[in-house]
Amino acid sequence: MIADARANASGTITAPVPGAPDPALLDDLVAANRILSDHGVLDAYGHISGRDPGDPRYYWISRSMAPGLVTGADIIACDLDNNPVQPGETRLFFERVIHGEIYRARPDVMAVLHSHSPSLIPFCNSDTRLRPMVGSAAFLGEGAPVFDIRTVDDQGDLNICTSAQAKGLAQALGRHGLVLLRGHGAVAVGSSIRQVVRRAIIAESNAKQQIQATLLGPVHFLTPSEIEYAKRMKPKDPDRAWQLWKQRAMGG
Amino acid sequence: MIADARANASGTITAPVPGAPDPALLDDLVAANRILSDHGVLDAYGHISGRDPGDPRYYWISRSMAPGLVTGADIIACDLDNNPVQPGETRLFFERVIHGEIYRARPDVMAVLHSHSPSLIPFCNSDTRLRPMVGSAAFLGEGAPVFDIRTVDDQGDLNICTSAQAKGLAQALGRHGLVLLRGHGAVAVGSSIRQVVRRAIIAESNAKQQIQATLLGPVHFLTPSEIEYAKRMKPKDPDRAWQLWKQRAMGG
Amino acid sequence: MIADARANASGTITAPVPGAPDPALLDDLVAANRILSDHGVLDAYGHISGRDPGDPRYYWISRSMAPGLVTGADIIACDLDNNPVQPGETRLFFERVIHGEIYRARPDVMAVLHSHSPSLIPFCNSDTRLRPMVGSAAFLGEGAPVFDIRTVDDQGDLNICTSAQAKGLAQALGRHGLVLLRGHGAVAVGSSIRQVVRRAIIAESNAKQQIQATLLGPVHFLTPSEIEYAKRMKPKDPDRAWQLWKQRAMGG
Amino acid sequence: MIADARANASGTITAPVPGAPDPALLDDLVAANRILSDHGVLDAYGHISGRDPGDPRYYWISRSMAPGLVTGADIIACDLDNNPVQPGETRLFFERVIHGEIYRARPDVMAVLHSHSPSLIPFCNSDTRLRPMVGSAAFLGEGAPVFDIRTVDDQGDLNICTSAQAKGLAQALGRHGLVLLRGHGAVAVGSSIRQVVRRAIIAESNAKQQIQATLLGPVHFLTPSEIEYAKRMKPKDPDRAWQLWKQRAMGG
Repeated sequence: MIADARANASGTITAPVPGAPDPALLDDLVAANRILSDHGVLDAYGHISGRDPGDPRYYWISRSMAPGLVTGADIIACDLDNNPVQPGETRLFFERVIHGEIYRARPDVMAVLHSHSPSLIPFCNSDTRLRPMVGSAAFLGEGAPVFDIRTVDDQGDLNICTSAQAKGLAQALGRHGLVLLRGHGAVAVGSSIRQVVRRAIIAESNAKQQIQATLLGPVHFLTPSEIEYAKRMKPKDPDRAWQLWKQRAMGG
Repeated sequence: MIADARANASGTITAPVPGAPDPALLDDLVAANRILSDHGVLDAYGHISGRDPGDPRYYWISRSMAPGLVTGADIIACDLDNNPVQPGETRLFFERVIHGEIYRARPDVMAVLHSHSPSLIPFCNSDTRLRPMVGSAAFLGEGAPVFDIRTVDDQGDLNICTSAQAKGLAQALGRHGLVLLRGHGAVAVGSSIRQVVRRAIIAESNAKQQIQATLLGPVHFLTPSEIEYAKRMKPKDPDRAWQLWKQRAMGG
Repeated sequence: MIADARANASGTITAPVPGAPDPALLDDLVAANRILSDHGVLDAYGHISGRDPGDPRYYWISRSMAPGLVTGADIIACDLDNNPVQPGETRLFFERVIHGEIYRARPDVMAVLHSHSPSLIPFCNSDTRLRPMVGSAAFLGEGAPVFDIRTVDDQGDLNICTSAQAKGLAQALGRHGLVLLRGHGAVAVGSSIRQVVRRAIIAESNAKQQIQATLLGPVHFLTPSEIEYAKRMKPKDPDRAWQLWKQRAMGG
Repeated sequence: MIADARANASGTITAPVPGAPDPALLDDLVAANRILSDHGVLDAYGHISGRDPGDPRYYWISRSMAPGLVTGADIIACDLDNNPVQPGETRLFFERVIHGEIYRARPDVMAVLHSHSPSLIPFCNSDTRLRPMVGSAAFLGEGAPVFDIRTVDDQGDLNICTSAQAKGLAQALGRHGLVLLRGHGAVAVGSSIRQVVRRAIIAESNAKQQIQATLLGPVHFLTPSEIEYAKRMKPKDPDRAWQLWKQRAMGG
């Protein structure tokens, strides 16, 4: 692939847009699609993207297809207006507007996932907040926020179709690592594709455990100081899980 | 196969009854049986049919057998009195009366499924209605109706054995996409085999999520306007899920 | 194998004891062990037996081993005192006393299963009765009885080790199709091995569904007249499920 | 491998430290890692160790890696200060301090497991105690204790990183067979690797069943005398389960 170039508003040629993804990002993005499908976080729908490591104005995402079938050849680049870099691409996720708006609102974010993770749905439609049961879920903080699309407009369906809706979602996300979407699903963000995958898998199991714990009586969640401490710390050996998940999802 | 023909009451030869199913319908009907088995919506029992696309007075359904073992050679045609078109067929679902009566009552319906989908059973025996948690479940409307066979007769068992019982069931279904049967299971209908499969799989997961959400406190379901909007809209790229499910259930 | 013979108390030679099992019974008993393991009703422990079709004073059961590994060569005969017919057999289930005492107390019973079916355990330790959610579970009647071993003796553990304990269990079973054992598991009985397997699989799924339904509010179980009707009727095409389960558990 | 030797503080050569593990221990330790992964008790994290049968001052454990991938070549020896016997080993579990401190506090303990067993987490964060539903879970006694790391220090995260924290954990464990860690997971101990594996698998299923039973109303747990009796007795044929689990996890 050859990188094409674009003129900016004043006609100056800007930096070339990405022609081919960083090999490590490509590898992680394909693996992420497969791992999340293997864990049941993604089914036929949902999508994960990674911001271009060399140019923050672009992100990489698969064509519109089932995540479990994604290969390297299916990964394309979009700009932050969610337009594909290569002209002529027609198979695009209509909800990719989520990715562009979050990358814009959160310069620290390097990966974005939109899923319908099954055990998160009950928390999307409840006043009970999703809260961390264990240290690895500390990124949920004092509780994951819930985005209600009616705060943007109460016409239309529950999908994020417009920039206004995606901006509202990004606002609800704020500085959090995960936001729930009422009647819809979730969006997880992070500083790498691997971190987002890790968060998504932990959020799903944390949700199941919180539901079970609710049955047993009042739940003792992580304390504010434990949450703060865990947020400051790096997870111990996160690649151990990544390699195991990848091997299970992709064989070899 | 050669289409045979029948005389109507006055002795006139009517249009030939279907001799061989439409290839696309046949393919979808076999895949539907396998997909629903693979998802645990169907076990050894239950059945799905598709109305003949060329002649609305006939529908196609498998012989009486486990859905997970159905092949193209097992698909037969029945008229709306639920009589097999080919004489001599003896392996018939005794509850096929459900299909004929619903096709009669609902000219818009092109496919009918009867299942004992496991997570729907709790809602069959409860005053709590099965209601949509997410946009794709909007076809559940303000709550799936529950058919109580005692409204037709309180003799016999819970199976739908007679035309009177099937007519009662069709009446309880009304304009809905899914009706629950007290102490028994569910019937889903739709404008195509693929839509019915989609509805059945979504209903099963929606039921699980609603049960979990009930544990967390009051559940916020889709609003009436969201339900109306979603009903008007076509689902985005429904074939993506169909192809993925088919590949998982049938390989290739 | 050659049938050996025994002298009764007065020295008269009685009818020969079974030397080899009826081939159909042997085939069903091996399949039952595999099917129940495949469904998670049996794990490493538990056992199913079939009464000899030709001589009601004997039953057939596997040697003491994991049910999922049983082959035809592992099936042995015991008399109703639970002594093996072939001398020298040492690998015997210590709880086989359950089988002899139930065959003695219930001449109509042709098969007995002892399991620790996971979803039945909650009902073993609860005042909430296991009751039929659907027609196929009507054999649970107005609720499965619970046997408390303390009604026999309050020494020892919860296992059924003595004839007195097994007689107490048989008394609690009464005319029922299934009895729960407090702090332990369940015993299912029936008129054939296939019926017992069917009952065990249905009881496990009924338990899950009743637990889910309890979450939704008051549960509407089968009515007394529906239970009575279903008990009088034969199940429709029960071999359809048996063949499907056998194929899944044993291949071919 | 050749056993190396060490001088004690006064310069005297002490007994050689273990150079190669006992073959039976090595075999069981590898199998334990695989079985616990296969049962979902261990995921990418957690670790199980066995005390050296010949020298109680050492224990064997895998290098820091996913338990499901452990082979015999990954098993190393540590002393009770948790230092590896072979110099130069760098891949070590940072929480291995748990093992040394428990072996020190409990001379009867021959194996230690630290896990994040999913169904135990709800009990880690609840006032509801994990209690035995069936005889095989009698080792849970009147309820598994819960260790709250804040009783040692309220700085840091929830991981057991220091000797002081591990000593506090060992104290909370006391004479029990299992201790839960608030916001974290569990530690199981026993007189052999096989017993610890058995306890971990039973604890996970017991937790699920207790949660389900709680839904049904008040739960009747094992009585104190039943618990005492079961603790005194050896389990019946425990190797039957071990062999079945091993075959499932490792094939052959």
